[in-house]
Amino acid sequence: MNRKQQNWHELAPLFLGAYAENNDLLEKLLREHINEHVFWRRNFHPDDQPPIATTTQYTEAYLQTEARTRQALHELAARLKRTVPFFHPRYVGHMASDVLLPGLVAKIVTTLYNPNNVCTESASVTIDMELEAGQNFARMLGFNVDPDSYPVAWGHLTSGGTVANIEALWNIRHARFLGLAMAKVGGQRDLVFTLPDGRSLTDLNDWELFNLPLDQVLWLWHQWMSEDPETRHDKTEWLAEHLPEHLGLAAFFQRYWTIKPPMILVPATAHYSWRKAAKILGLGAKQLVEVPVDRHMRMDAGALSRICQQACAMQTPILAVVGVLGTTEFGTIDPIDQIVEVQQSCQTQGLYFPIHVDAAWGGYLASIIRSADGGTKAREHVRQAFKNFPSPEVYDALVALKHVDSVTLDPHKLGYLPYAVGGVIYRNRLLSLIQSQKADYVFSGDAAEGFANLGQFILEGSKSGASAAAVWVSQKVMPLHAEGMGKLVARSIHNVEYFIERVDSLKKSLEQRAAVVVPVMPDSNLVTLAINPTGNHSAAQMNQFMTALLERLAYTRNQPVQNLQFIGSSTRLYRKNLSNSEATRLCMALGVSRETFVTEVKDKHVMSESLLILRHTLMSPWLIENDVQVNYIDLYFDYLEQQINALLAEWPRCGNAATA
Amino acid sequence: MNRKQQNWHELAPLFLGAYAENNDLLEKLLREHINEHVFWRRNFHPDDQPPIATTTQYTEAYLQTEARTRQALHELAARLKRTVPFFHPRYVGHMASDVLLPGLVAKIVTTLYNPNNVCTESASVTIDMELEAGQNFARMLGFNVDPDSYPVAWGHLTSGGTVANIEALWNIRHARFLGLAMAKVGGQRDLVFTLPDGRSLTDLNDWELFNLPLDQVLWLWHQWMSEDPETRHDKTEWLAEHLPEHLGLAAFFQRYWTIKPPMILVPATAHYSWRKAAKILGLGAKQLVEVPVDRHMRMDAGALSRICQQACAMQTPILAVVGVLGTTEFGTIDPIDQIVEVQQSCQTQGLYFPIHVDAAWGGYLASIIRSADGGTKAREHVRQAFKNFPSPEVYDALVALKHVDSVTLDPHKLGYLPYAVGGVIYRNRLLSLIQSQKADYVFSGDAAEGFANLGQFILEGSKSGASAAAVWVSQKVMPLHAEGMGKLVARSIHNVEYFIERVDSLKKSLEQRAAVVVPVMPDSNLVTLAINPTGNHSAAQMNQFMTALLERLAYTRNQPVQNLQFIGSSTRLYRKNLSNSEATRLCMALGVSRETFVTEVKDKHVMSESLLILRHTLMSPWLIENDVQVNYIDLYFDYLEQQINALLAEWPRCGNAATA
Repeated sequence: MNRKQQNWHELAPLFLGAYAENNDLLEKLLREHINEHVFWRRNFHPDDQPPIATTTQYTEAYLQTEARTRQALHELAARLKRTVPFFHPRYVGHMASDVLLPGLVAKIVTTLYNPNNVCTESASVTIDMELEAGQNFARMLGFNVDPDSYPVAWGHLTSGGTVANIEALWNIRHARFLGLAMAKVGGQRDLVFTLPDGRSLTDLNDWELFNLPLDQVLWLWHQWMSEDPETRHDKTEWLAEHLPEHLGLAAFFQRYWTIKPPMILVPATAHYSWRKAAKILGLGAKQLVEVPVDRHMRMDAGALSRICQQACAMQTPILAVVGVLGTTEFGTIDPIDQIVEVQQSCQTQGLYFPIHVDAAWGGYLASIIRSADGGTKAREHVRQAFKNFPSPEVYDALVALKHVDSVTLDPHKLGYLPYAVGGVIYRNRLLSLIQSQKADYVFSGDAAEGFANLGQFILEGSKSGASAAAVWVSQKVMPLHAEGMGKLVARSIHNVEYFIERVDSLKKSLEQRAAVVVPVMPDSNLVTLAINPTGNHSAAQMNQFMTALLERLAYTRNQPVQNLQFIGSSTRLYRKNLSNSEATRLCMALGVSRETFVTEVKDKHVMSESLLILRHTLMSPWLIENDVQVNYIDLYFDYLEQQINALLAEWPRCGNAATA
Repeated sequence: MNRKQQNWHELAPLFLGAYAENNDLLEKLLREHINEHVFWRRNFHPDDQPPIATTTQYTEAYLQTEARTRQALHELAARLKRTVPFFHPRYVGHMASDVLLPGLVAKIVTTLYNPNNVCTESASVTIDMELEAGQNFARMLGFNVDPDSYPVAWGHLTSGGTVANIEALWNIRHARFLGLAMAKVGGQRDLVFTLPDGRSLTDLNDWELFNLPLDQVLWLWHQWMSEDPETRHDKTEWLAEHLPEHLGLAAFFQRYWTIKPPMILVPATAHYSWRKAAKILGLGAKQLVEVPVDRHMRMDAGALSRICQQACAMQTPILAVVGVLGTTEFGTIDPIDQIVEVQQSCQTQGLYFPIHVDAAWGGYLASIIRSADGGTKAREHVRQAFKNFPSPEVYDALVALKHVDSVTLDPHKLGYLPYAVGGVIYRNRLLSLIQSQKADYVFSGDAAEGFANLGQFILEGSKSGASAAAVWVSQKVMPLHAEGMGKLVARSIHNVEYFIERVDSLKKSLEQRAAVVVPVMPDSNLVTLAINPTGNHSAAQMNQFMTALLERLAYTRNQPVQNLQFIGSSTRLYRKNLSNSEATRLCMALGVSRETFVTEVKDKHVMSESLLILRHTLMSPWLIENDVQVNYIDLYFDYLEQQINALLAEWPRCGNAATA
């Protein structure tokens, strides 16, 4: 048996399987643990008589309710047969796949116990697991978790990535004004807060106070609060009088009018949840400034630097810069290392911003560069397992994660776990802990116990302990390093690397009939594809063609799933996000006229501001490697070619019909 | 068999049971539906070969991973044995209980399919269920769901009550400024928007615009947007220039400085998530104004009216008034009907506010007054099943729910479903739909299809379809009316009514040794208890005694759950929330000196600003009615008396020891 085979055999029991091949294993585990739960109940107070007599179970009334229950579950089961078949290698659409069996079983089993991770009185066991899982994520990202060093990382789970992003930005918003508030309180009460460079807070102006690095401000705050526990409550109240959390943004900026409302910088490719976040937090969608992306659909660090220079000159505050690690549309990875460099160079000019990384999609990629002992694997070492991955840019971005302030990641995406579970990890736990209403235990000896009352610290309240158990168990089985979870994530990259190869053969097959282009070369495990019939020069017409093609690949309601051969997804590539030269390059490759791919559409039958393209998430572990030598990527390309040919046979009728 | 017995037999199969008596039913249902899932997978593409060969399942590498999986699950199972035993009638602490078996099975089964209710491409089946469940909640609350009338209600699920509250307040914040924005756009572009009373928006000042009723504003907006779909995008952009969602709160209030930042009114008993909401939304914790509560711990409508009068006089805007239906600490119910009256009387004076009801706890109580045909049961009719419930105040509050704008309710609380699932229901669906980034389908013919892309409308993104299935199935088995879910909820009220009776006998038993008082008479199914040793007159000392008592009732980590006889919880009754006369009454009943129960503590060994009291959530269906004639409330009181006596024997030593 070769090493590749062994690797495959190792991963094989981790999923129920496309044919539910591991049904025995799933059923065995569930049977054991459902029984275990049953007998746990029976061992709680065996001295009590069972409240429900067996004779009751044979009464008509009982049986009628049982019948109603079965009826409702049959209706559910019948409907569920139309569920999107994420589990199968024929599903190459959204960020979903079969889920990890250990996590699935853990989630199901723990649901029987039904812990609520809001506080230790409702869930001590699974809260410990949630915090352990948070520590493991922190280690994977390269954060310090040793409580004797400063800062110490801390992370917790959320109901999803959107909530994680909102919470992180909320905490950052709070912390950014803490230096200013301390200075004001210091001024009012003759208190001296001294920065590491010897300056006193009260000597700084509002702009300087806003631009103090978070680690410094949080340290000063912690020192001050630790001095005398008796006065902690008062101090918190003094600070509140100068903080937007208490005053509200309107009153705060009216009082501290020398500070302009801050911008949040995101890449132009950022997920729509960032607009939600800016609105919900009252910062305003207008303040969400899109940093242009380069031809790789990565944030353009040069453009970021220029925006920062301007912000510096105009004294426009930057609340935070958000980098995206794995964009939803293209899977591309922002240059986190360069964002960190811009951060550092700005600091010398008096402009500071913290960095949040939205790694909802790509966070788990960091497991590939992490060795089992916690070290960082050299790029040359990592590369051995791949054709091209990781590019120097991607590798540097992953390594630089350890410098950022907070990271969102979604175990229900590349963590291969059931919906819905996200997570947010803070490099400096104080960034999260300042929110607590009952701050006392933050400073108490038993910090772990204090942090466990999660509802006090985080955006959410009641939350699923079962999700925490799923994350914890999956991390036990597949630790967050290259020899664990990294192996699984690596497969998805192998899939993409093979996919790219197959594009070339499709190109050749369709020569003279259609142009086939990968518009954005993938940074990891998500790949897009654009197809334009030869002879068509209109962007709008190309979109018509792609729409017709997508209909043959889309999951649609109200039809048997068996009708679906392959299920893909789509996205749009916007002209506004491309440079002129990049738009030219893409149009030439597709045979589309540059005049029809525009930011302002005059004739919508010909022109378009975006190109509709196929988008493939290649998470399935069985796409190219399995026991039956069936390559699903080959099958997909065969199917795609067949559909393209069928459409081309009707073309331009199909396009025209749609516009008629 | 009598009716009572039949009622009991009907409910018996709905839970796994304290002794897991219904293990056969649970195992049978799970086996069937897990098999069904397995064979669904096998029927998707039977033409494909199974990617995992059975020979792989016998390789060493496979078995090693299987072993690791089992090891991790054993660790989980071992740890879970210390889980809080919510399922048992000996658990009378927080808002948790055994869960509905149909919902539990639905959740587990659907987790295997793993739908993601963010959009129809990820979960068409369970999104339909979520929206159906939302409609059922709307009907239970008395909202209109007929699409031919205006307004039409709409609701969806959330990851919990906190997120539901934040989302509702976010939507209200947006909608409140819509009239103003339309007037400004109208002024700039010579557009006339006419109100039902004939006035034109452009003739109103900013205060008047802010105080337009939401239904009117949303209607005008909808009419305008529906006029010409081609211009919808432009109109949305025009409006954005005058809305805080786009500008941010700081810039908005700077521009429209005649409007002061608005207050949010909540009862003094409101859950701490409201502080979170005010902070997160950038409104500021200071703007969260606590309306005093009366002696029943219900919002004092007179006080509300006075605050509103003052707001009217000062032209201080009120963003929303939040009523609580079932406070977390006392289960008390704000007078929703009187809040509606205040709303109406304020409107005649030009002050408008929408009403949100935080019914996270008590929302399901509405099922008790709802008849199967959707009608409202008369109070006399409802009363027949109870000793005292519902009081006229509680009944009127429940009936008045149909008039409020939005309601939060938590299926994971009185819905008896697994964590975590909340919900938010809007009386006027436009209140929710204005948030959409892609508003077009709000106006399209197939509204249902459009609404289904939930991620566009709501705060969250990816979310569990399994939770939606759990809610849907449980509603099928137990519809949201008196003959369905109402029966189960009624049991929890019976429990409390019996509990109150037992307090009297405890009082008698402890006469001369300790005072036993129910400090807040319960409105529904949550009851508190205060105990003070005879001879002690100090509030601080009473709290010491209660702390010692609570230690014997609390769930604590790191001990076998079998050590726990009964598990209770506690809360604090704050002096600041009581009137002088009420504080006097309570102190007299307890034998505590009024001078030691104060808002400002001078000597903390004697005085306290709050009283620590026991808090009991009596959700378990087997507390007093079961097949073994064991009354767990009796057993609880026996245990409580025993513990009190044991502590009294040491008293005042136990108190002194703690203060030493």
